[in-house]
Amino acid sequence: MTENDYTLADVVALLTESGDKGPASHRYADDVPMPSVEILSEIVQDLRCVLFPGYYGPSEITPDTMPYYIGSTLDRVKRRLADQINRGYCFVCDKTQVDACADCEARAKRMAHQFITTLPRIRKLLLFDVEAAYDGDPAAKTHGEIIFCYPSVRALTNYRVAHELYKLEVDIIPRIIGEMAHSDTGIDIHPGATIGKGFFMDHGTGTVIGETCIIGDNVRVYQGVTLGAKSFPKGDDERLIKGLPRHPIVEDDVIIYAGATILGRVRIGKGAVIGGNVWITRDVPPGAQIVQSRILQQSFVDGSGI
Amino acid sequence: MTENDYTLADVVALLTESGDKGPASHRYADDVPMPSVEILSEIVQDLRCVLFPGYYGPSEITPDTMPYYIGSTLDRVKRRLADQINRGYCFVCDKTQVDACADCEARAKRMAHQFITTLPRIRKLLLFDVEAAYDGDPAAKTHGEIIFCYPSVRALTNYRVAHELYKLEVDIIPRIIGEMAHSDTGIDIHPGATIGKGFFMDHGTGTVIGETCIIGDNVRVYQGVTLGAKSFPKGDDERLIKGLPRHPIVEDDVIIYAGATILGRVRIGKGAVIGGNVWITRDVPPGAQIVQSRILQQSFVDGSGI
Amino acid sequence: MTENDYTLADVVALLTESGDKGPASHRYADDVPMPSVEILSEIVQDLRCVLFPGYYGPSEITPDTMPYYIGSTLDRVKRRLADQINRGYCFVCDKTQVDACADCEARAKRMAHQFITTLPRIRKLLLFDVEAAYDGDPAAKTHGEIIFCYPSVRALTNYRVAHELYKLEVDIIPRIIGEMAHSDTGIDIHPGATIGKGFFMDHGTGTVIGETCIIGDNVRVYQGVTLGAKSFPKGDDERLIKGLPRHPIVEDDVIIYAGATILGRVRIGKGAVIGGNVWITRDVPPGAQIVQSRILQQSFVDGSGI
Amino acid sequence: MTENDYTLADVVALLTESGDKGPASHRYADDVPMPSVEILSEIVQDLRCVLFPGYYGPSEITPDTMPYYIGSTLDRVKRRLADQINRGYCFVCDKTQVDACADCEARAKRMAHQFITTLPRIRKLLLFDVEAAYDGDPAAKTHGEIIFCYPSVRALTNYRVAHELYKLEVDIIPRIIGEMAHSDTGIDIHPGATIGKGFFMDHGTGTVIGETCIIGDNVRVYQGVTLGAKSFPKGDDERLIKGLPRHPIVEDDVIIYAGATILGRVRIGKGAVIGGNVWITRDVPPGAQIVQSRILQQSFVDGSGI
Amino acid sequence: MTENDYTLADVVALLTESGDKGPASHRYADDVPMPSVEILSEIVQDLRCVLFPGYYGPSEITPDTMPYYIGSTLDRVKRRLADQINRGYCFVCDKTQVDACADCEARAKRMAHQFITTLPRIRKLLLFDVEAAYDGDPAAKTHGEIIFCYPSVRALTNYRVAHELYKLEVDIIPRIIGEMAHSDTGIDIHPGATIGKGFFMDHGTGTVIGETCIIGDNVRVYQGVTLGAKSFPKGDDERLIKGLPRHPIVEDDVIIYAGATILGRVRIGKGAVIGGNVWITRDVPPGAQIVQSRILQQSFVDGSGI
Amino acid sequence: MTENDYTLADVVALLTESGDKGPASHRYADDVPMPSVEILSEIVQDLRCVLFPGYYGPSEITPDTMPYYIGSTLDRVKRRLADQINRGYCFVCDKTQVDACADCEARAKRMAHQFITTLPRIRKLLLFDVEAAYDGDPAAKTHGEIIFCYPSVRALTNYRVAHELYKLEVDIIPRIIGEMAHSDTGIDIHPGATIGKGFFMDHGTGTVIGETCIIGDNVRVYQGVTLGAKSFPKGDDERLIKGLPRHPIVEDDVIIYAGATILGRVRIGKGAVIGGNVWITRDVPPGAQIVQSRILQQSFVDGSGI
Repeated sequence: MTENDYTLADVVALLTESGDKGPASHRYADDVPMPSVEILSEIVQDLRCVLFPGYYGPSEITPDTMPYYIGSTLDRVKRRLADQINRGYCFVCDKTQVDACADCEARAKRMAHQFITTLPRIRKLLLFDVEAAYDGDPAAKTHGEIIFCYPSVRALTNYRVAHELYKLEVDIIPRIIGEMAHSDTGIDIHPGATIGKGFFMDHGTGTVIGETCIIGDNVRVYQGVTLGAKSFPKGDDERLIKGLPRHPIVEDDVIIYAGATILGRVRIGKGAVIGGNVWITRDVPPGAQIVQSRILQQSFVDGSGI
Repeated sequence: MTENDYTLADVVALLTESGDKGPASHRYADDVPMPSVEILSEIVQDLRCVLFPGYYGPSEITPDTMPYYIGSTLDRVKRRLADQINRGYCFVCDKTQVDACADCEARAKRMAHQFITTLPRIRKLLLFDVEAAYDGDPAAKTHGEIIFCYPSVRALTNYRVAHELYKLEVDIIPRIIGEMAHSDTGIDIHPGATIGKGFFMDHGTGTVIGETCIIGDNVRVYQGVTLGAKSFPKGDDERLIKGLPRHPIVEDDVIIYAGATILGRVRIGKGAVIGGNVWITRDVPPGAQIVQSRILQQSFVDGSGI
Repeated sequence: MTENDYTLADVVALLTESGDKGPASHRYADDVPMPSVEILSEIVQDLRCVLFPGYYGPSEITPDTMPYYIGSTLDRVKRRLADQINRGYCFVCDKTQVDACADCEARAKRMAHQFITTLPRIRKLLLFDVEAAYDGDPAAKTHGEIIFCYPSVRALTNYRVAHELYKLEVDIIPRIIGEMAHSDTGIDIHPGATIGKGFFMDHGTGTVIGETCIIGDNVRVYQGVTLGAKSFPKGDDERLIKGLPRHPIVEDDVIIYAGATILGRVRIGKGAVIGGNVWITRDVPPGAQIVQSRILQQSFVDGSGI
Repeated sequence: MTENDYTLADVVALLTESGDKGPASHRYADDVPMPSVEILSEIVQDLRCVLFPGYYGPSEITPDTMPYYIGSTLDRVKRRLADQINRGYCFVCDKTQVDACADCEARAKRMAHQFITTLPRIRKLLLFDVEAAYDGDPAAKTHGEIIFCYPSVRALTNYRVAHELYKLEVDIIPRIIGEMAHSDTGIDIHPGATIGKGFFMDHGTGTVIGETCIIGDNVRVYQGVTLGAKSFPKGDDERLIKGLPRHPIVEDDVIIYAGATILGRVRIGKGAVIGGNVWITRDVPPGAQIVQSRILQQSFVDGSGI
Repeated sequence: MTENDYTLADVVALLTESGDKGPASHRYADDVPMPSVEILSEIVQDLRCVLFPGYYGPSEITPDTMPYYIGSTLDRVKRRLADQINRGYCFVCDKTQVDACADCEARAKRMAHQFITTLPRIRKLLLFDVEAAYDGDPAAKTHGEIIFCYPSVRALTNYRVAHELYKLEVDIIPRIIGEMAHSDTGIDIHPGATIGKGFFMDHGTGTVIGETCIIGDNVRVYQGVTLGAKSFPKGDDERLIKGLPRHPIVEDDVIIYAGATILGRVRIGKGAVIGGNVWITRDVPPGAQIVQSRILQQSFVDGSGI
Repeated sequence: MTENDYTLADVVALLTESGDKGPASHRYADDVPMPSVEILSEIVQDLRCVLFPGYYGPSEITPDTMPYYIGSTLDRVKRRLADQINRGYCFVCDKTQVDACADCEARAKRMAHQFITTLPRIRKLLLFDVEAAYDGDPAAKTHGEIIFCYPSVRALTNYRVAHELYKLEVDIIPRIIGEMAHSDTGIDIHPGATIGKGFFMDHGTGTVIGETCIIGDNVRVYQGVTLGAKSFPKGDDERLIKGLPRHPIVEDDVIIYAGATILGRVRIGKGAVIGGNVWITRDVPPGAQIVQSRILQQSFVDGSGI
């Protein structure tokens, strides 16, 4: 029977049967539902209300009523996040220790509480990020507009939240929170990256910051900047070794212009300036200024290119 | 009367009147509504449930209940897709054969059924794509997280669905499904492109794959890669000739790093590695490794650039 | 007490207290709510219905019924936009002239009406943009599909609307409307830029057009193109001087290929063609054709890069 | 096998199989969907906007903008109602004349247009109903509150709309519109009833007005009033004869107090007053005043009742 | 031209023109929108959360987190209610004192605050009502189910809220809140009525309690009970005199069974029991037990009735 | 401090503090959320789709695709209902046996499955109910309209579902499902009542059927009929004794007209006809026909009433 002759029932049978063939083809059935992108999105929105009161959430909030709003929002976040963290555990769980489920729930609640305690620190970092955007973009007229509509602040809010969850060894949830910002802003920061204070990504679309990056204070990057990996060592089993440091270290006060690509565990020294569209796979000394080599003007139609 | 003096009624009159001036200014009135981006989005979401059961849709699904879910979802998809396909016909129809409408409906139903029969094959291809991501990204800890939150898999699901519809000569719907993924992920794959198995786009933002591209098996590309057209021959009527092969052929096992631009009907030979940010408009032999020319370190402020 | 010991009440107290420390940490409480991204999004959607009747809004619209739809939609837009404009004033207002609030409302209504009067002109410009896309993309089969699903038209609709509001000196709303399109399409056009007729951005992801850009007629750009600023002069207070002309002037008939970066108040002469991935910080004469310098083929593993 | 042993698959099989046993157990499968209670509810809401502009729909409507709103609303109502009317035909169709479907669509459109032409008349009747409520209820402070929150006006709007559709011989849709009001207000008016101008039902819960009732002008009734049928003659086939006149005729200026029950084709003469909780199955002469017979005061516990 | 010949444009013209003919045909255009039934419904839902914490709103609420939830909910209620109160003023305003609008806003805010201060008292009354239901209904197994699903408590919550607003002389909003409960439960209590503590309406459908009723403590009524007006004196202008006491006074500990109708300013003495379906228009002494007179068994078909 | 002087903080404190005073004032905090009226409403809607396929759910369902729809719907119902049943247990649980929670979950799943097995039987009963409506109402033109819009069928669907859950000793959920129908239709059937096959309630508003009623086959009742309790014996603790038989037994083939009230454990004999508005507290022999006593015609204004 060829594909053309399939009935609906044939297709159902084929799709059901292929469901038995491996970890990617069908998720193991259990009673704990998947993490919910929708609910995580609401949680992050709630956190925005807590981190930037008056900008998000009720705009009429006053010093008198602020504790009510922050308290009730955080309590809701804590409970819903604990649930999502538990779903995340379940998602990656190999089900060999099913009895531990009750422990997982308790652990998820502890994690959610621990995360909540980091919020005052996250908030301070984000205020430095806002200040960095104000200082770094002549088009920014007020701090308010940066908080309200700059992709850099939106992506960093997700990143700084996701990074704390990553440090708490929460499974998969940090990646989902990071991908939300990626989809919204085109900025792809892995939650494992370490980013100092006062970070600003202008425009941002296409910027990628890899899992083991370490970025210092007061760094500014533009759209389309890649801080990526260069090589992928394999283990004896011919599979990639996961988790090795493989992304750049960017020291304080560096500026990286649009479209630059920096690959591998290289070090970009303090205060260096990297020009647009360059390709870097070696260390750059502090204070250096790198630009793309000179471009020759020539006829486009005469066979240029390689 | 200058613009400043217009009343609301004036503006209404001007906008209504300009409605008569050509195909772009007002769609021909008829009773078949436009294709619905919202419904197509629900259809693609339903297809995700069928292609990755347990990951999307009810997570408690078991081998016993799977046929119920897949069967009812596919039946719904089939009917709704037939309706959208018919709307697509109508959208591009020049209305000179209005009587054929009943035939169009029947044809749309046939197409929708034919599409359904390709799903087992689409599913196999996507499982290879998931495997390729697992093998190609050291940051990927589990297959599950790739299915659930990698933009590459999201974009390829839309592409592989849209491509089958494109081959069935369905009008406009494939483009809409492709643009959905473009908006979500920043990855722009034309449904007309031909892509082999085991394809992985890491990060992906800004990657563009043109209509007549042919991509082999086990190809890996990064963000900001363009597989585009170089020249646009015009016909005797001074209008672009549409449909000519004009995009690259990328053979098996090629890797293309971030920001590379490859234009025209060139061939990138099997196993070639294309470095980041390069600009290629000629063939590359199999196994070749291409990188951007050496960058000179120089003072940024002294007038560099062209 | 360390972070680890915080109770929920401690976190609430810390977050409330930090609420007093500056403009970025808490928006001043008042009764006028913030501009609403959701409502502005509905307003833009309404404008799409008016600018492209039959494509958006009811598809069965006829010349007879068009005035009803356009009239009622515009009346709704006018009122809702006036409200958002007023919220925008309030958002940036320093509250030293609170008594002027009634005036602000009246001014917002005038502005909203003035904006409405520009719609016939905006519509004409957008029809030229659609024609430019049809003429510039061999993959475009019909005008209809360009209106319905090309990111270029979507981003330009937001831009042309936002630009008129920018010229009317409406606060913050234009930025929000621009960022909506940025999030949807990956195309970041500042509402302050000046763009002539017949503009087309193919694919578009990652393209950035800065606040003081001036772009002529019939210009075509591709994805990942940056028209940005190069240097940021600071004033005596060591803060950036805002508002200076600092972005490129692009004359008529220029084409700029994917990934090109053009920085500073340079002039790209009429008819010039800028190749992909180049980095330009000086004027380009009319008719010139610029491409990236020749790339050497070399082993990737032998230490290439800088 | 007893019920207790059924598996899910058993239950599915039993429910599927019983699907073949008659008209009530499974609706005949066809492609025209059922009438939608949700869409009909939106249609009625749209009609409220047209019938009471300013009260429903945009409150800022002015004489200048009113035609835009009424025109676009009516055009939408006309198209959606035509679709629902067609679904209604299909719902009762015995499918012996399937070829007539195209005719049904055309007929549905004609009906929808005819209905639209009755709206000015319906509006006049409803304004009399509002006036009657104002004159009849000492608790009514303004006309506005009657329009906005009196169940009588809400139920009569549905009734007067449903009645015109009933006269046009539209299938089932009138009943659905009537039942909507029944569910909202507890007032059950059959769309077939004939009701004059200036009708008011105070409180209204539990009031029932049967299919063949004829009610004159300026009639007022209270909650729990039944104008019902007394006997149900059967035909030779031992089934009820449907459609016979079997409900009361109520002449002008009658008042019927709470809980009164009037059954059969009796005539309540002009100006009669019917007291609460009475039971009437004979004619009442004009001007008569009927009350429940005298109640004896007695001990409740001593065995009262029949 | 007869109705049959009307075009859509004719209908639009007729409906627009009739818009000029009086207070009921078109609400005066102004910028303050109508009270919103939807928002008032959310306000009442918020109040339920505050009055019955744990039953409505987050069920995980604890004594520690309760102030956060109650505080933030009340702050939101206060602001939204003030807005609705102001809309209510505007709704009944005759626009002869347009300049007073700013005062109206301030007054609305004061009213909303005053209302909030009555909530602890309202809560106490509702707890008595719950207790009364538990004591009066053998089918009530727990207090929880009474709070969660008894129509009596739902209707009384709306009533007690609406009554406080009525006492504050808020316009129209109390009626709307009362009608919400009427539509949900079939119980129609005018917000002007005075009801003591421990009131219980079992089943409740069709029960009506008029504007000037005065009901004592521990009264129990059943479904279909009317406490209504008997006569409606008219003033010299032949219009009803509004606001006169015209409904019953029901003293403490009275029980009124299903379907009883009590009309006029009569007094039902303490501890009286009124049987079902009776009709009372005179005072009933304390302790009396009233039942319907004896029913004769007779043939139904022999011409019974009047 | 008087109520007038309360600040928002005072109100919050008072409402929080009163939260400690008893079972009705604050539900005990735990992690299992309350039963959800919204989800139960979706479950009942799903059951309607299964019980009346084609009428509810997808109308294009065919014998081939029916198992897919019924199977997937039932699987979803089973899981969601188990969750709601468990919440119901928790709602009434006194928390003295907290350790039993895991058992409760397992028990809830068993109950949900047992309920599912009763659906074929429920379906058969409902088809008899539809037939009874068709035979009993001359206004019913088709079986389809009865299923689709008769309140009797809607209320009986909820009742028959709730009754099976009641028999399984599920807590509170049956009451909630019953109250949903009460709110929608004005018909209040306690889930504990026993109702035979072929039951029809015409119009239905205000009809009440008590917890211990026993109703035979082919019974027909009208709106406003009460089958209630007469006396409420108290136990030694002066509290009502709950659960005693206290409502009527209605034998086969009885008809009860609008507004009749039947109270207490009386027996209405087979084939009896009870006229409207009567009040019955004693047994009625089989075949008897009871009507309200003769009403005297008299002047309404001369002091009638008691």
